[in-house]
Amino acid sequence: MIQRIKLTLQYKGTNYSGWQVQPNGVTIQELLQKAVKKIFNQNINVVGSGRTDAGVHALAQVCHFDLEGDHAGLLRSARNDKLVLAINSQLPDDVAVSKAELVPQTFHAQRSAKKKQYNYYILNSPLRSPFLDETVWRITHPLDVKKMQQAAKYLVGLHDFKAFCAADSSVKTTVRRIYKIAVTPSISPPYFKGGPGGVMQISILGNGFLKHMVRNIVGTLADVGRGKIAAKEVKKILQSRDRRQAGKNAPARGLFLVRVEY
Amino acid sequence: MIQRIKLTLQYKGTNYSGWQVQPNGVTIQELLQKAVKKIFNQNINVVGSGRTDAGVHALAQVCHFDLEGDHAGLLRSARNDKLVLAINSQLPDDVAVSKAELVPQTFHAQRSAKKKQYNYYILNSPLRSPFLDETVWRITHPLDVKKMQQAAKYLVGLHDFKAFCAADSSVKTTVRRIYKIAVTPSISPPYFKGGPGGVMQISILGNGFLKHMVRNIVGTLADVGRGKIAAKEVKKILQSRDRRQAGKNAPARGLFLVRVEY
Repeated sequence: MIQRIKLTLQYKGTNYSGWQVQPNGVTIQELLQKAVKKIFNQNINVVGSGRTDAGVHALAQVCHFDLEGDHAGLLRSARNDKLVLAINSQLPDDVAVSKAELVPQTFHAQRSAKKKQYNYYILNSPLRSPFLDETVWRITHPLDVKKMQQAAKYLVGLHDFKAFCAADSSVKTTVRRIYKIAVTPSISPPYFKGGPGGVMQISILGNGFLKHMVRNIVGTLADVGRGKIAAKEVKKILQSRDRRQAGKNAPARGLFLVRVEY
Repeated sequence: MIQRIKLTLQYKGTNYSGWQVQPNGVTIQELLQKAVKKIFNQNINVVGSGRTDAGVHALAQVCHFDLEGDHAGLLRSARNDKLVLAINSQLPDDVAVSKAELVPQTFHAQRSAKKKQYNYYILNSPLRSPFLDETVWRITHPLDVKKMQQAAKYLVGLHDFKAFCAADSSVKTTVRRIYKIAVTPSISPPYFKGGPGGVMQISILGNGFLKHMVRNIVGTLADVGRGKIAAKEVKKILQSRDRRQAGKNAPARGLFLVRVEY
């Protein structure tokens, strides 16, 4: 028999070349495939909900793979799951499976995904934070949050996001739906007391995202916040379908894949 | 003229051999002395509020040093402080000065300190958290928080803490006053959603701490939480003045120097 297993996992992307296996650099997909091979002595192909770029983090990336044999006994409870513990024992400290589930063969980590949420974190301060450095984009120039919130509204809905898609992407369609963009001026991380203030969170929920789309949106919103472009310019950039009109690609280290809905 | 400058700084201790300059390994004191020398071309001695062990973090370590010349012009405002920015430009990403102040010659970072607060973080879960790994002690066995809170009460007050002091310490007196120990079962770090639960915080406020004192207290409280020893045993351990009676030294990576009061 063949069983399909769905994993939910966290990783700090700092030291990795992203999700997808590639010739140079260690990737998360590769680590998982090696871990499962070590445990079950089976060559498997781990299918992710989508790629994440080099340096991007995940709080709940989802993937699936097929395993020969009956492994239901390994998946008894969420907190004391033998499969989770076995896989984690084969992974480095900055990658960890949080959940393993048996799913029907009709489940597909990528094709069954209905919505995805990404959060992006900006430290808007002239001062560094040693504890947040690897997980935020630090911008020293003060950002106008209201203008960023205004600009974000133009992007919500069903649009052609070609202007926010990496030039080297080769997708069939650049039309995507964004359900929500929330720009929160200040959340308070715990290791932040005595530090330079709060951290801005840009949360984006969509039915799918193009290559670099979230980071290009964040880079553009940052230009609005800085006063480099007006909020309403974002509507024109979207309509231009021209990558050169949008802001620069925000750094990978501020980006988190937070949730995949099925 | 000579001016005395007080710095408040944060550091992630993971990659350092603690505060104090030593022959092998990079230390925070050494980094600061080199940074100031680079900027002012003066050999200075940075005096810290106290040492922190290798791997221990700081949210607000305090130190002072003396500088020849008039540098008041560099210290105008908290947010746009030229001295802070200048020193930070000479420090690695995991060390950052958050504040610089001119203080009278009577101020002494170590001798003027009245109270110190340390926080210790425990991730009580069978599951790892990639984002917290460097700043928590992970304990898989479930901890009984109420018993830990009960045990902590025996340590509050003026006591001889010899049982909780590293054997190789050579201090004049092992008597210290603990004002407060707060064991909070679950605080919520931000990068923790989808993760294995909350983080336990043990916060200790005292008039001074012996070598390894906080970590030995935490190690002992963890033994109580695990059910290895009874809460009231802690009173006997304290009275024994015998290091071998107390629990093991908790790992450095969960410990934060949070505040120094003057």
